[in-house]
Amino acid sequence: MITTNEINLRTQGDTDIIDITAKVQKFVTDSAINNGTVTVFVAHSTVGITTIEFEPGLVADLQKVWENLVPENIPYDHDTHWGDGNGYAHVRASLMGASLTIPFTDRKLVIGVWQQIILVDFDNRPRNRTVIVQVMGE
Amino acid sequence: MITTNEINLRTQGDTDIIDITAKVQKFVTDSAINNGTVTVFVAHSTVGITTIEFEPGLVADLQKVWENLVPENIPYDHDTHWGDGNGYAHVRASLMGASLTIPFTDRKLVIGVWQQIILVDFDNRPRNRTVIVQVMGE
Amino acid sequence: MITTNEINLRTQGDTDIIDITAKVQKFVTDSAINNGTVTVFVAHSTVGITTIEFEPGLVADLQKVWENLVPENIPYDHDTHWGDGNGYAHVRASLMGASLTIPFTDRKLVIGVWQQIILVDFDNRPRNRTVIVQVMGE
Repeated sequence: MITTNEINLRTQGDTDIIDITAKVQKFVTDSAINNGTVTVFVAHSTVGITTIEFEPGLVADLQKVWENLVPENIPYDHDTHWGDGNGYAHVRASLMGASLTIPFTDRKLVIGVWQQIILVDFDNRPRNRTVIVQVMGE
Repeated sequence: MITTNEINLRTQGDTDIIDITAKVQKFVTDSAINNGTVTVFVAHSTVGITTIEFEPGLVADLQKVWENLVPENIPYDHDTHWGDGNGYAHVRASLMGASLTIPFTDRKLVIGVWQQIILVDFDNRPRNRTVIVQVMGE
Repeated sequence: MITTNEINLRTQGDTDIIDITAKVQKFVTDSAINNGTVTVFVAHSTVGITTIEFEPGLVADLQKVWENLVPENIPYDHDTHWGDGNGYAHVRASLMGASLTIPFTDRKLVIGVWQQIILVDFDNRPRNRTVIVQVMGE
């Protein structure tokens, strides 16, 4: 059995990080599927999906590390060609990845107590975003 | 239902980046499966799979960022032991990841208009590569 | 059909890297499932999962690259707030990712001969870890 669901949300720009764990768990709970996997996917090229212990210190640390690894204000060919100014956001999203697959049993995600599912919007302005949450199992 | 398919292609070396979106979508279209996930996996240790807006500026940006993060010409223990000269390629591939899972509905991948599936071959010479594309659903 | 299994292991701290390929393959072999995907997931916020050619040179290279990219001994807000001293481990795990999905056919993983599945424990002390291995297919 399969259910395909959407989370729609508004992000604030500048590597905004949002905890979507409860919404993903709710789609699993509400499905008639007991065991399987949930695939979380963002259909946007400047957004990544991963897990983290979601607390303000680590949210700030992750933002700082990205600025160290792939700085916003160095030249990117993307910006030269298209003038968007968000070349850094595309590259960061490509490195982080758009997809995450998590098993569940008895309708409960097997994630840790200190582990949350996060959306990271690297773009340089507020955006409306859609996250696809597909529940598959039996 | 499940179909397991292969993309066979020739890469050019030096972090060659190839858009495989149309080929992945075709396996989904050709299956008799309406809804589910497609898993894209490379069975090579110097190749990664991710998504990006596939345009020449970002292709060049991604190549430059990898050279900044994991440079080709610094010493790697792998090269000292084996003499392959591609230690950087192994490490980059391990960081990028070999696998990507994307949902589809009504036989259409849910990826964005500006989001393509890419193979990144970090190796230092042309290679023949196989990508596994497994379609699973109902 | 679905089977959900666990690997329990003891890690040694300091970016300990462990090859879990044989254990993952065994769960696939032992299931009554011929074709499908296996999802490997760690329910810990300081551990990552990926693939690499598992040989001592590359294990050392991967550890050195992580120390270059996300150093252990720079200030992290997580450490300031919580005193754990493992802020670097959380950030590295978040960048590497907690999940890996691999197709199998005829009960055999489609991974390469020179490609192993690894758990990377970034934490700064020995830990007991659980890896979830879910086999799904037909």
